[in-house]
Amino acid sequence: MSAAQDSLRLWLRLFSTTTLVERELDRALKREFGSTLPRFDLLAQLERAPEGLRMGELSERILTTGGNVTWLVRALEADKLVTRRVSPTDKRAAVVRLTAAGKRHFAAMARAHERWIADIFAALPAADRRAMHARLGVVKDRIRSPRTTA
Amino acid sequence: MSAAQDSLRLWLRLFSTTTLVERELDRALKREFGSTLPRFDLLAQLERAPEGLRMGELSERILTTGGNVTWLVRALEADKLVTRRVSPTDKRAAVVRLTAAGKRHFAAMARAHERWIADIFAALPAADRRAMHARLGVVKDRIRSPRTTA
Repeated sequence: MSAAQDSLRLWLRLFSTTTLVERELDRALKREFGSTLPRFDLLAQLERAPEGLRMGELSERILTTGGNVTWLVRALEADKLVTRRVSPTDKRAAVVRLTAAGKRHFAAMARAHERWIADIFAALPAADRRAMHARLGVVKDRIRSPRTTA
Repeated sequence: MSAAQDSLRLWLRLFSTTTLVERELDRALKREFGSTLPRFDLLAQLERAPEGLRMGELSERILTTGGNVTWLVRALEADKLVTRRVSPTDKRAAVVRLTAAGKRHFAAMARAHERWIADIFAALPAADRRAMHARLGVVKDRIRSPRTTA
């Protein structure tokens, strides 16, 4: 098999594995918490920002696609998991923050999420997990460095 | 580092690497072909189905998100890269097929796509690429097999 075919095969598997894991997590979040991966991702961003985030900042930090941020925030607000307040430094900007109930809800989901991930990747011995982590780092560096041919 | 932390770290890197590669491919398709990854993905599905595909079949086979299939097909039809014809066996269903121009356009993109992928994954020696492919297969099998804890 040529290096090009070999690389294409690896990319397709990388992509399909990521998609499968995402679907599995989304399904588990629905089943156990009535939530979704985009909701979980949004709450995770807020949990890392105790001062809150503006809508624009939230949009930039969200990793998953498929969730309109404005719509997601409204639904989370209706569930009393986040608040939207006018920024004290900029009256035009709304700042989104986790409520106490939002923090508890996220903490429970984060524990389950970590357990599901651990269960999936327990398929590999620890040494293989570490090797894959390091190699994916090499691929990421390659993408970020300027190249002449791509 | 515990197995759970270790697994979470690997998952986040798997996810972010996949996202980075997707963005890179999308950017390159825009730059060199005025196309996008969802368009490329849709054309790839049609290329594998010389008999054509119904809209429903296309939606099921598309891997990428972010592209509404009806909208994508209309745009590709306007560019004369696909046709929509009534199915001879089911008058209610439209069958989508690549045109000759669509085939040429896809072939040119597929060659470039393979080159970009090869360039990115050239960051890893062939043995590492193969090892990663095999290990991702183990993870995929794990997701697909019934488990008690997830």
